[in-house]
Amino acid sequence: MNDRISLAHGDGGELAHQLIQEVFVDTFGHQEQAKLDAAILSIAHSRIAISTDSFVIKPLFFPGGDIGKLAVTGTVNDLAVSGATPKFLTASFIIEEGFPIVDLKKIVQSMVEEAKKADVRIVAGDTKVVEKGSADGLYINTTGIGWIDEHHTVKPESMQEGDSIVISGTIGDHGIAILSARGDLGIQTEVQSDCVTLNHMIAEVLQAVNHVRIMRDPTRGGLATTLVEICEDFNVTMEIDEMLLPVRREVQGACDILGYEPFYLANEGKVIIIVGKEDEGKVLSILHQYEIGKEAKVIGKVIGKGKGKGKGRLFLRTPLGSTRRLDRLSGMLLPRIC
Amino acid sequence: MNDRISLAHGDGGELAHQLIQEVFVDTFGHQEQAKLDAAILSIAHSRIAISTDSFVIKPLFFPGGDIGKLAVTGTVNDLAVSGATPKFLTASFIIEEGFPIVDLKKIVQSMVEEAKKADVRIVAGDTKVVEKGSADGLYINTTGIGWIDEHHTVKPESMQEGDSIVISGTIGDHGIAILSARGDLGIQTEVQSDCVTLNHMIAEVLQAVNHVRIMRDPTRGGLATTLVEICEDFNVTMEIDEMLLPVRREVQGACDILGYEPFYLANEGKVIIIVGKEDEGKVLSILHQYEIGKEAKVIGKVIGKGKGKGKGRLFLRTPLGSTRRLDRLSGMLLPRIC
Repeated sequence: MNDRISLAHGDGGELAHQLIQEVFVDTFGHQEQAKLDAAILSIAHSRIAISTDSFVIKPLFFPGGDIGKLAVTGTVNDLAVSGATPKFLTASFIIEEGFPIVDLKKIVQSMVEEAKKADVRIVAGDTKVVEKGSADGLYINTTGIGWIDEHHTVKPESMQEGDSIVISGTIGDHGIAILSARGDLGIQTEVQSDCVTLNHMIAEVLQAVNHVRIMRDPTRGGLATTLVEICEDFNVTMEIDEMLLPVRREVQGACDILGYEPFYLANEGKVIIIVGKEDEGKVLSILHQYEIGKEAKVIGKVIGKGKGKGKGRLFLRTPLGSTRRLDRLSGMLLPRIC
Repeated sequence: MNDRISLAHGDGGELAHQLIQEVFVDTFGHQEQAKLDAAILSIAHSRIAISTDSFVIKPLFFPGGDIGKLAVTGTVNDLAVSGATPKFLTASFIIEEGFPIVDLKKIVQSMVEEAKKADVRIVAGDTKVVEKGSADGLYINTTGIGWIDEHHTVKPESMQEGDSIVISGTIGDHGIAILSARGDLGIQTEVQSDCVTLNHMIAEVLQAVNHVRIMRDPTRGGLATTLVEICEDFNVTMEIDEMLLPVRREVQGACDILGYEPFYLANEGKVIIIVGKEDEGKVLSILHQYEIGKEAKVIGKVIGKGKGKGKGRLFLRTPLGSTRRLDRLSGMLLPRIC
């Protein structure tokens, strides 16, 4: 690892993984918690989940949302995919001197609206202001707390060969929407960010399916990076089929021009759900009832379990019928994506 | 209120109060929670407290601590003064491209050490990197969760005339240490930041005294601003005696040169405890057993309760025997103090 932070340390890819592993996970000494998006904590009579995220997205306003909406959906979704019912959020703001109050109000209003939809309460906050040039407009941290219901939880250790990998909808929308909104790559699209809270839909899946193996929201680093993390953390090998990936035509078009692959692009309103083959129909029929899940599909399966050479890996079956190993997003794709 | 954010919106003084009231408290709709440093939340079989704080202190390393130590002590103390036993922290980092990893490691190490002393676990984290020029080195958010023991809690509504105001030690140390470390005001002192976790000492006070009225840690805005907030939030009138305020000689000296008043300077390891007159001796004897409380003193009292003209105010008795009304810190004293 280089001795200075580079942008690639923050993009959710390989260098970010190394940095987090080396600097934070090892130092704080929690290898287990690092495997899920939220910390699961036993308390006397119940269990709570806690998740934290700072949002530095650029631009602050984008098609489909703004940093405030994103700050709520991001943390709510992290709790939801951990199997928790999101309940409370804190919100902390670092604001650059000179930032228009009217914009701040809009952003706070977005937070309130999104929190209401998700049925969570914003219960504590903090504000800091830094001198002009010391922050880029506004950064927001949200930390969320949710309850874990013992009866409806996820059991990643139970993943096994043959399990189905479900994605709740099209991939890459957020990544392309932000890229387009920035205008610095010369592309213009109609794509909106998929930024949305998923907790109610996820709760219905957890209620209906007793044996959900694992859920994750594929944000920074995209679908592929998130699946690679699951493969490595839980010693499973997976294969996804490129032909099955739901990708909007405009997103695929932008990727073709820019040389990106949609499965490395960020999403902010999608969930990966891994379940036994026997449960995939039930999961799909629930997701399809929701506007935000109507394009849900099975995109691949777990093809092996266990440690050893060639294990714990993610493979992509290409349209030509060949398979290609996918790794974490390597190097920087897009800074400030969330 | 101006239509743009100024530095004074972030210093804990009058403009900051207005901003928070107008933009956050009103919008989020929690007038009650805004009165305490942490949100107190009922859960099925217990109650938890949640507090969040972003740290943007400059410089990152200062006499007596660094941003990592501060990020732990700040949130731990916010929970402790709310009557909670701090248990869990989350830590979220916004890092500027180019930041030395060796410094990041030092800072994370400080967090771990301070968390250990405070007996709290850092249970979740997040890292974002922003381009050079988009942040000033490093910002840290910590969010803390603690348990509320029904038997040992604070009851601000029970404040009454005659109650004693105790401060746990010298005021203004943090403010002067940071000012000196920055070097931009041309003063040099030996003063160290008082940055320290107070939770064990506070827990002993709560165990011993059944009727603690309220506790607060006088950080941004200092002793005076914090007391004014208590006066306004709970409709009490207070008087503190300038002659009784514990102030280090070096801090007073720096204040004399700079035209500051020590009771507006930030502290990061002090607690204000308000108790009935009958309990002040017990509180002092506990505080005096701790190195961090050995200079604890009674500095004033509650002189009235109720609403109306001239009520809900803070007065300072001066060495000349006259009294002077103190308001919140107005205008900017020091940006980036925590």
